[in-house]
Amino acid sequence: MANQYVDLETLKYLLFQVQDLKEVLEQERYSEYDEEAVEMFIDSVKDYADKEMYPYFKEMDEHPAHFKDGEIVVHPQVTKYMKEAGEMGFIGAPFDYDAGGLQMPSMAVNASSFIQEAANNHLPGYVGLTLGAAELIVHFANQELNQTYVPKMISGEWGGTMCLTEPQAGSSLSDIVTSATPDGDTYKIHGQKIFISGGDYQGAENIVHLVLARIKGAPAGTKGISLFVVPKNRPKSDGSLESNDVTTVADFQKMGQRGYCTTHLFFGDKEDCTGWLVGEPNQGLRYMFLMMNGARIAVGRGAAAIATGAYHASLNYAHERPQGRELQSSGKKDASQEQTLIVNHPDVRRMLLLQKAITEGSLSLVFLCSKYYDLSVAASDEKESERYKLLLEIMTPIVKTYPSEMGITSINNGVQVLGGYGFCSEYILQQYLRDIRISAIYEGTTGIQSQDLLGRKITMANGKALQLLSEEIKQSIGEAMAHESLAPYAKKLGAKLELTQEVLQSLMGYAMQGDYQRFLADATPFMEFFSTIVMAWQWLVIGTNAQQALVMGSKRNSEEFYESKLHTMKFYFKYELPKTQGLSEILMDKEALTLNTDKKIFA
Amino acid sequence: MANQYVDLETLKYLLFQVQDLKEVLEQERYSEYDEEAVEMFIDSVKDYADKEMYPYFKEMDEHPAHFKDGEIVVHPQVTKYMKEAGEMGFIGAPFDYDAGGLQMPSMAVNASSFIQEAANNHLPGYVGLTLGAAELIVHFANQELNQTYVPKMISGEWGGTMCLTEPQAGSSLSDIVTSATPDGDTYKIHGQKIFISGGDYQGAENIVHLVLARIKGAPAGTKGISLFVVPKNRPKSDGSLESNDVTTVADFQKMGQRGYCTTHLFFGDKEDCTGWLVGEPNQGLRYMFLMMNGARIAVGRGAAAIATGAYHASLNYAHERPQGRELQSSGKKDASQEQTLIVNHPDVRRMLLLQKAITEGSLSLVFLCSKYYDLSVAASDEKESERYKLLLEIMTPIVKTYPSEMGITSINNGVQVLGGYGFCSEYILQQYLRDIRISAIYEGTTGIQSQDLLGRKITMANGKALQLLSEEIKQSIGEAMAHESLAPYAKKLGAKLELTQEVLQSLMGYAMQGDYQRFLADATPFMEFFSTIVMAWQWLVIGTNAQQALVMGSKRNSEEFYESKLHTMKFYFKYELPKTQGLSEILMDKEALTLNTDKKIFA
Repeated sequence: MANQYVDLETLKYLLFQVQDLKEVLEQERYSEYDEEAVEMFIDSVKDYADKEMYPYFKEMDEHPAHFKDGEIVVHPQVTKYMKEAGEMGFIGAPFDYDAGGLQMPSMAVNASSFIQEAANNHLPGYVGLTLGAAELIVHFANQELNQTYVPKMISGEWGGTMCLTEPQAGSSLSDIVTSATPDGDTYKIHGQKIFISGGDYQGAENIVHLVLARIKGAPAGTKGISLFVVPKNRPKSDGSLESNDVTTVADFQKMGQRGYCTTHLFFGDKEDCTGWLVGEPNQGLRYMFLMMNGARIAVGRGAAAIATGAYHASLNYAHERPQGRELQSSGKKDASQEQTLIVNHPDVRRMLLLQKAITEGSLSLVFLCSKYYDLSVAASDEKESERYKLLLEIMTPIVKTYPSEMGITSINNGVQVLGGYGFCSEYILQQYLRDIRISAIYEGTTGIQSQDLLGRKITMANGKALQLLSEEIKQSIGEAMAHESLAPYAKKLGAKLELTQEVLQSLMGYAMQGDYQRFLADATPFMEFFSTIVMAWQWLVIGTNAQQALVMGSKRNSEEFYESKLHTMKFYFKYELPKTQGLSEILMDKEALTLNTDKKIFA
Repeated sequence: MANQYVDLETLKYLLFQVQDLKEVLEQERYSEYDEEAVEMFIDSVKDYADKEMYPYFKEMDEHPAHFKDGEIVVHPQVTKYMKEAGEMGFIGAPFDYDAGGLQMPSMAVNASSFIQEAANNHLPGYVGLTLGAAELIVHFANQELNQTYVPKMISGEWGGTMCLTEPQAGSSLSDIVTSATPDGDTYKIHGQKIFISGGDYQGAENIVHLVLARIKGAPAGTKGISLFVVPKNRPKSDGSLESNDVTTVADFQKMGQRGYCTTHLFFGDKEDCTGWLVGEPNQGLRYMFLMMNGARIAVGRGAAAIATGAYHASLNYAHERPQGRELQSSGKKDASQEQTLIVNHPDVRRMLLLQKAITEGSLSLVFLCSKYYDLSVAASDEKESERYKLLLEIMTPIVKTYPSEMGITSINNGVQVLGGYGFCSEYILQQYLRDIRISAIYEGTTGIQSQDLLGRKITMANGKALQLLSEEIKQSIGEAMAHESLAPYAKKLGAKLELTQEVLQSLMGYAMQGDYQRFLADATPFMEFFSTIVMAWQWLVIGTNAQQALVMGSKRNSEEFYESKLHTMKFYFKYELPKTQGLSEILMDKEALTLNTDKKIFA
């Protein structure tokens, strides 16, 4: 089952060599880990995913989670997985030892999650949300809430969710109306939440909802939103559970991720739903957003993983399927020849290399952002920590968006490699294409990420984050310049950095004139522009590492392996980077065509 | 139900004004039609589609065609539609009066099919294939076959299919092995065919298969393929039917177009399957390809239609859904304001305008190619006819591919407009996204269309087709230059024509050196490059027409309507045309990265 859904050699190469996990492991915080321990963990995850996740991937799509008789019916593997994820440490991995966790660097945690998501993206969400909900409690709730909930969540006995969206408030969280009425030390919660992933399932002993709600009398907008722990079943003083008036009223059937339930919840239908305030009143959105970087990296990681599974499925098909013949130098084909494998057709190779460039580049980006996170948490020097925080801030919308958007493109090419079979349910490609589509919507759509990137992150701390990122890129350019064969690529990237400055100067003009609508109108094309350049940087870094390994005669990986990375870098620079030229023209074009005016442009 | 799935005003504007149907109606062949008659026909089609097609669109997806007890079960509306399509003239429309048809120009026929496909793309394929199969008989078979089959097919009593693909021969038709053994005046057919759309359905009195097979002893490759009529039930001399040993052995379940059955057929399992040769032996592929232009225009038209349905669904949603607030000049939002409709957000407007530009531009292209077809058939002057044939030849791969590929992009943006709801089965956007995916595969994948464009059409008749097309584009540029406000766009298009010359010169270098693999390696990026420019031409033509209407004070459509077309033209030139810059860089890059070499690039 070599590389059936993930290429572990490349994963380890990106983790250990390219993004240099060692630098993180050297920090005091992670002193109990070494590379060998992380590698063993990764191998055990792959082993588990092979046996308990990948075999159920198609089945979970074909038998989707659904609402029946007042509850959500999920594939039996969900319950098994939650329990085993607790045992394997998948949930506890990122938590401090103090909180009962394994205090593992997020680089390693994300490697583990990536493998699981590549194997079966319908399962890890249950763990991911439990982990995210527990993190909110650990970071912001009092000791009592911690003691009551966190151990049960880390063990996988209780699930967790994040309840943000309401029917009238999708991307616009300031319009949340779910209410919290003080009732002694606790609150009575009333309202409804939609799109709640992992919100309920048959046989779950308890589900711990982290709910955004408005305390009666709180200020309007985002400043009046508080965060509550609202369990499906509330623990009584004797430790037993009683119903907390949280009702699942419906589910959402979806085009993909059909094994991962999406629910519609009612809180307090019988006025008997108790919520426990997390931290201070009116700080809910702030708490939520302090955890948001992790959640957004997770979405990008999941998208990269889904696209990786799809890449290997189409690559394997291309190596097995004979079809047509190679063109001869005459421009003709010789029908008397045996058919050739389709991997030998240039157009098929182009589609496969595009997938390789997008998926491996995305994984590199995920590890890089994880490293920024780990170092921001673990660095002993405060200035260093601050530096990594800023780098993480500016990279978060990119690591969320690039794998999500380009992952769609990647899988779309994978489907095309299979021709008619790509469209058929019997083959897995179509499922990947359906599954990944949510990634560009989860945790803030691409439009919102793009506004975050251009409107907040580029300008934050007087442009300091962008400056730090530029320095990182320039350093990589410098390292690549040391290799004659890489110099042309390094120079191309340098030129794109200068182009970025030009584009930003042009856009900043609008902001300085106070025309913020215009400034942000093309935020999404800017995201495409900038993230394409960031990805070129990642490929230059990978290429430099591979070139160095070849020069040094490294035996960690084969020569072919390193050559293949260099080839993919070249592919990215030839086929992907040039699109930034057209994008820069769009971004510097003075004509405004999308602003809201009186003109009936859709007449 | 205004513009629920199609905007009839725009359709008529493109048909009558922009692509000037009158020029076709002036031909002797179509003298029984005038604009009024065509408009009445179109209105009746829309009326029919509103009542009998659109209401079943979602239902047919939710209850897919499927194989059960040896037959294909389809939605009951299929049988009703086939019968009514016969009565309404949908099948007979393009046929000559002599063949029992309505001798309608293909511009009008395609307008009708487009409306039907926008309403419910799961139904028209049954008619389309019946029509295509009947056309093959009319053009190439003897009188007896014509009399036996064509009237029953035109009336919708009998269905028809095209049987090309075999399990070992997908895109590579030279590898077909289905055999035909002479048996008196007829042949015994033996073999299997896969991916046969509309291949069987419960209650069909008969299905007439047009089958590619190899007569025993025929030359290898494409030169040894013949075409046969192979009915499911063969007519006896008394007119009654008996089984012809054509068995449906399975179906293909698909990610989209689930109401449109796709079957796996066995011919001659009991050695009792009779085939009637169409025309001459070994000419099968030639006959098939003589009809292929029509089939490829039909795929592009269907893709444009699906994307049009999706555009209107997301446009309507954007006009109904309040969410968030407009940015104020301060860059802040005022949470005390009412929420605004999402159509007012610039990023949403960008996504909607992109859909508008792609879908309306695609429809314009479909009408243009239909016009070339009509004039190639109807022009009295042979030189004129030849001119239109060449224009049709070069445009066919483009009209097949642009709407298919960019239709995916268009609908993908439509899904994004709906946010989380876009991913939910309750909303229709996700269905459009699934349905359209086959268009880039049907009737020759995008890779094959691209090789056809660059490898055959660009060079055909010593480059004459390209020269004619360039003249057409230059004439449009000249007309646009007459309007000061359009001159900048006309000049941009002119520059892109020059860039095309540069790109082609660079690519032709490889062909002249005999390096055909390299010449065609980037055919697909060339398709994207060239079709993006062709689409800019279409938008310049539309813009010029709208500008003239405004100048002349035309009252056929409102000023807002014309302004909206001009706005969309500007949008296309700002947001889409610039991508050709990066594509030209790819195409002129000397590095070859996708050719088959010994290098293990996927190591």
